[in-house]
Amino acid sequence: MIIVLEQNATKEQTDHIVTTLEAKGVQVHYSKGVDKTILGLIGNKQILSQIPVQRFAGVEKVMQVSEPFKLASRSFHPEPSRIEVRGVEIGGGRPIMMAGPCSVESREQILESAHAVKAAGGNILRGGAFKPRSSPYSFQGLGEEGLKLLAEARDETGLPIISEVMDPENLELVAEYVDILQLGARNMQNFHLLKKIGRINKPVMLKRGLSATIEEWLMSAEYILSEGNPHVILCERGIRTFETHTRNTLDLSAVPVIKHLSHLPIIVDPSHGTGICRYVAPMSRAAIAAGADGLMVEVHPKPEEALSDGPQSLTLENFSVLMDELASIQGIEFTN
Amino acid sequence: MIIVLEQNATKEQTDHIVTTLEAKGVQVHYSKGVDKTILGLIGNKQILSQIPVQRFAGVEKVMQVSEPFKLASRSFHPEPSRIEVRGVEIGGGRPIMMAGPCSVESREQILESAHAVKAAGGNILRGGAFKPRSSPYSFQGLGEEGLKLLAEARDETGLPIISEVMDPENLELVAEYVDILQLGARNMQNFHLLKKIGRINKPVMLKRGLSATIEEWLMSAEYILSEGNPHVILCERGIRTFETHTRNTLDLSAVPVIKHLSHLPIIVDPSHGTGICRYVAPMSRAAIAAGADGLMVEVHPKPEEALSDGPQSLTLENFSVLMDELASIQGIEFTN
Amino acid sequence: MIIVLEQNATKEQTDHIVTTLEAKGVQVHYSKGVDKTILGLIGNKQILSQIPVQRFAGVEKVMQVSEPFKLASRSFHPEPSRIEVRGVEIGGGRPIMMAGPCSVESREQILESAHAVKAAGGNILRGGAFKPRSSPYSFQGLGEEGLKLLAEARDETGLPIISEVMDPENLELVAEYVDILQLGARNMQNFHLLKKIGRINKPVMLKRGLSATIEEWLMSAEYILSEGNPHVILCERGIRTFETHTRNTLDLSAVPVIKHLSHLPIIVDPSHGTGICRYVAPMSRAAIAAGADGLMVEVHPKPEEALSDGPQSLTLENFSVLMDELASIQGIEFTN
Amino acid sequence: MIIVLEQNATKEQTDHIVTTLEAKGVQVHYSKGVDKTILGLIGNKQILSQIPVQRFAGVEKVMQVSEPFKLASRSFHPEPSRIEVRGVEIGGGRPIMMAGPCSVESREQILESAHAVKAAGGNILRGGAFKPRSSPYSFQGLGEEGLKLLAEARDETGLPIISEVMDPENLELVAEYVDILQLGARNMQNFHLLKKIGRINKPVMLKRGLSATIEEWLMSAEYILSEGNPHVILCERGIRTFETHTRNTLDLSAVPVIKHLSHLPIIVDPSHGTGICRYVAPMSRAAIAAGADGLMVEVHPKPEEALSDGPQSLTLENFSVLMDELASIQGIEFTN
Repeated sequence: MIIVLEQNATKEQTDHIVTTLEAKGVQVHYSKGVDKTILGLIGNKQILSQIPVQRFAGVEKVMQVSEPFKLASRSFHPEPSRIEVRGVEIGGGRPIMMAGPCSVESREQILESAHAVKAAGGNILRGGAFKPRSSPYSFQGLGEEGLKLLAEARDETGLPIISEVMDPENLELVAEYVDILQLGARNMQNFHLLKKIGRINKPVMLKRGLSATIEEWLMSAEYILSEGNPHVILCERGIRTFETHTRNTLDLSAVPVIKHLSHLPIIVDPSHGTGICRYVAPMSRAAIAAGADGLMVEVHPKPEEALSDGPQSLTLENFSVLMDELASIQGIEFTN
Repeated sequence: MIIVLEQNATKEQTDHIVTTLEAKGVQVHYSKGVDKTILGLIGNKQILSQIPVQRFAGVEKVMQVSEPFKLASRSFHPEPSRIEVRGVEIGGGRPIMMAGPCSVESREQILESAHAVKAAGGNILRGGAFKPRSSPYSFQGLGEEGLKLLAEARDETGLPIISEVMDPENLELVAEYVDILQLGARNMQNFHLLKKIGRINKPVMLKRGLSATIEEWLMSAEYILSEGNPHVILCERGIRTFETHTRNTLDLSAVPVIKHLSHLPIIVDPSHGTGICRYVAPMSRAAIAAGADGLMVEVHPKPEEALSDGPQSLTLENFSVLMDELASIQGIEFTN
Repeated sequence: MIIVLEQNATKEQTDHIVTTLEAKGVQVHYSKGVDKTILGLIGNKQILSQIPVQRFAGVEKVMQVSEPFKLASRSFHPEPSRIEVRGVEIGGGRPIMMAGPCSVESREQILESAHAVKAAGGNILRGGAFKPRSSPYSFQGLGEEGLKLLAEARDETGLPIISEVMDPENLELVAEYVDILQLGARNMQNFHLLKKIGRINKPVMLKRGLSATIEEWLMSAEYILSEGNPHVILCERGIRTFETHTRNTLDLSAVPVIKHLSHLPIIVDPSHGTGICRYVAPMSRAAIAAGADGLMVEVHPKPEEALSDGPQSLTLENFSVLMDELASIQGIEFTN
Repeated sequence: MIIVLEQNATKEQTDHIVTTLEAKGVQVHYSKGVDKTILGLIGNKQILSQIPVQRFAGVEKVMQVSEPFKLASRSFHPEPSRIEVRGVEIGGGRPIMMAGPCSVESREQILESAHAVKAAGGNILRGGAFKPRSSPYSFQGLGEEGLKLLAEARDETGLPIISEVMDPENLELVAEYVDILQLGARNMQNFHLLKKIGRINKPVMLKRGLSATIEEWLMSAEYILSEGNPHVILCERGIRTFETHTRNTLDLSAVPVIKHLSHLPIIVDPSHGTGICRYVAPMSRAAIAAGADGLMVEVHPKPEEALSDGPQSLTLENFSVLMDELASIQGIEFTN
């Protein structure tokens, strides 16, 4: 940690800072430059993070040198993490495809989707049972009934299933049914839920918050990891910017950045990332080319009748074409 | 709702859209312009919101005419809402001041703060007991012990108290102690928690999410209102932008915008909004001049020793000076 | 154009709006919905755009139905535009590679770069002679001397050259040397310069502004097109967001969006888009997979000694490896 | 400047960095912390800014310690700058009001506006003659004829005049007529124009770019100052964010931030900042309460007929009411 002193910081102020920090076991290096004087602090990251150094008189600003995350960091864990779910390996070098409807709506809808996903070469079935909706008047999901239908689709097709958990009170219920827990963008900093998931031994896919920096996202992963659950998968799903033509701005550069900073696998969701079905295929191809470990896309047998996210859902035919296109990016194979 | 058709939409596509919508009881007005053909849809807002019209073949884009919120809307409730808490009226025309430390840290700290807030003319005491922290390694609050200390400070000073609730599992616990529940920015779209709070008859202050539009914020208020709790107070606390000099960008224009769109009172939090104590006083003055119903500011007897948010906390002396400055904006009186 | 009336708009206000608009030759369709009353305006786009309808008493908001651009629009010009520069075709289905140093620094530097670009299969040579720098104390480019060196490199290698024009006063000078004019992000709305370039019959690559929406970007293209120059190439180079790990956020979804809205070719610049050389290769692959018509990347024989943008420049070896990687995205061939 | 080394940087890499920097006259301090090793660089700011240290092998990231601006800095010039224009002092402690129509449209319009601005207590008359418009099909201003009409309004009322200069080629023309040159948001990084204005001895008001950080804004001021023109006034006019209810997000915290970092006066433009006339008055009051040196607001005798920016213009009556309201913020007096 570096403290930059104000130009007119007094000797008393500087001495007070140094004395206070040294009393807490922090080493302080004083360095006078041409314009600015700085103090370099050396000490335990946790101790440093708990001293409000910015608030001392004479301090202009404070700069962090180290990343705040540790367990999620590539320097702590140099090899990429691989997560296996019923025989499907995520992060193992071969991208995987998660697909299915935004919401589970009926037995027919989810079974038809599951069979089509399987037939086209998809690896994991998605489907929402508890839905976060910005309006209290929108369809909120089938709840446990949806989870049961998902499980039935898994039994029929062999595809592992993923579904979102929205609140701590039904975490156990969701965990009982699904193979991978999904933590949505709006809950990326629901710290209580993060901790509870950290105490379960089940893979979890953590979506990036709409306005979360990559560092904050990795800190949320750190919450889960630090409670003991190592099976964390990240998912880039678009960030909020000023551009309005797409629903969000899919930040594909997050893929190589995560690969540089962390060992955790990263999935890309171009359906939420763009919000418009005509852009899902090109952004799927781009995500794979950028090095993503897989994709999550929304498909629906009849998007016109979808109870949620119809505008961004592919038809089952669109999906099958996309799977063929992806195969043509050399070296890519989706298999199940 | 307006559907803009693609330039090359066929008659079959248009007919299919019209027939489908009319079958659901929606009136459709066809209108051919110079460049574009549009369909104007007239019908119940809830029915319309559940049809994925964007997904029909031949549709270029869809535009909303009505606001999606109703109970939070000024057109539904033209008079400003007033919320009374132990004799303090919020939204009644005279701005109020909520102040106190970011976190409750000790008996001495909260009592000293409470007496200073009271002496300077503050109206409500704030203090965090359960703290949302982006790092799992940071101080997480005293929990119930913090709530007990807050209640003791209320008993000594008569100031009503406000504290944050972070998860549904301890909502009842927090509600038992505090006079106003605070819902933090990171939980603005924690829909499960919103609904549970909507079923409690206690005032709640709903902070704007870091990247929430004003419309989304009002939709979250709608969640609480639609469950039956009318005592909602909004709080602008800065949004996330590209500017890094301040921690967030305090969007003061949200004050007159909320006054135009809604009847709910709005408080401004310049401490989180700027993140730097030297900017708290000018932004407090500005918020009141913009028409805010009150302020929430962080004060701490010894900011250098604060366990959270020290950099943005005022000393008790700074706070007293601020209260005097605010009084000089003509017509403003803080009293308790 | 749609006018949404205020809930309490009076008959006099509505009549006044209708009368005023009809007097200007606009047809007005009145439509009363459940919550809102709207007026649909049909008329010439240019006339409509010059009436400040928002300002009439009784108006809540105004919504645009048509895109504001015409010549840049795909509906006006359904076939993709192809631009040929000394035998290199841009927009013809086969992606092209523009590469070279950020700034021309010396004869050796630009010739060594040009030969390496050529040898690896690049198609066009880039190099800055007039440099926009955020600090007045930074290297500002070699000026005309830089253009002469670029032209010499073209003579030696046969590669067409592209360089930035920053102000109207030396447009003619730059145009005399280069094959493609580059208009930088900071000048995307330098309307005077756009118009002047529109009167020259030379290809121009128009970079997207740091905070420009796709619609504004196409409107800037419209400025050039409307003055008579049809040879416009667009270039996505990253937008400004809250994320700080990368210098900008490369918005690759702009590629399919532009393909949907416009007939103009689109190039992607991952060097400025990320600002960090280690991310240039993955984002280059992703851009091509998303459907871009080509790339612009910065290369430098000795990035450590670059006078500008060293951190994001590839070495000549990195560049050669990248060209091989790109070839492996099936169907992609760079040739010159 | 601080270099943070990669965890696995080798001794050779570190030695190479140190040797290279020392050869350029930079002192290098080596400091090994718990997680990271850093190099502190001490030397001339200009030399440091020209070495691409980020690009050396073994470097993880580079952090700036000093601000990049000097002449614009408060530490260089501790007293606030005051700029006098025909007897009106800007930055002298008493806020001033600039008002007038967006565009000069006719003799009657500008004279009527000027008399009303004067009568209500305004200090400076604004009016656009050369207009930056995002569409080539919109009204582009009256050009020199507009400047002549402005000058006539000055002669009649005694109000100094301000108008925008858009390109270097008519800088001299505009400077001949106006008392203050205005540089628009879209030209904030038009470096050629900045330099030319820096060589003229005339006050200039520099608007903040739509996506400019405060640091970049001050660097653009530095361009003007470093060429010799000390009469720079800053103007906050809203930044681009995700919020769409207002046209821009007025960043009022820029006012105290600029006061902290710089000696230059700062004006706030709530008309462009919000884009909607109903929000101009509250944001004007807030700007003054935040400490702004003045305001710039758009007024029009008949906003319904304005050729540009009608939606955000106040009527002459609205303006007169606003001036009275502002007077009631204690201690504020506008006089002319």
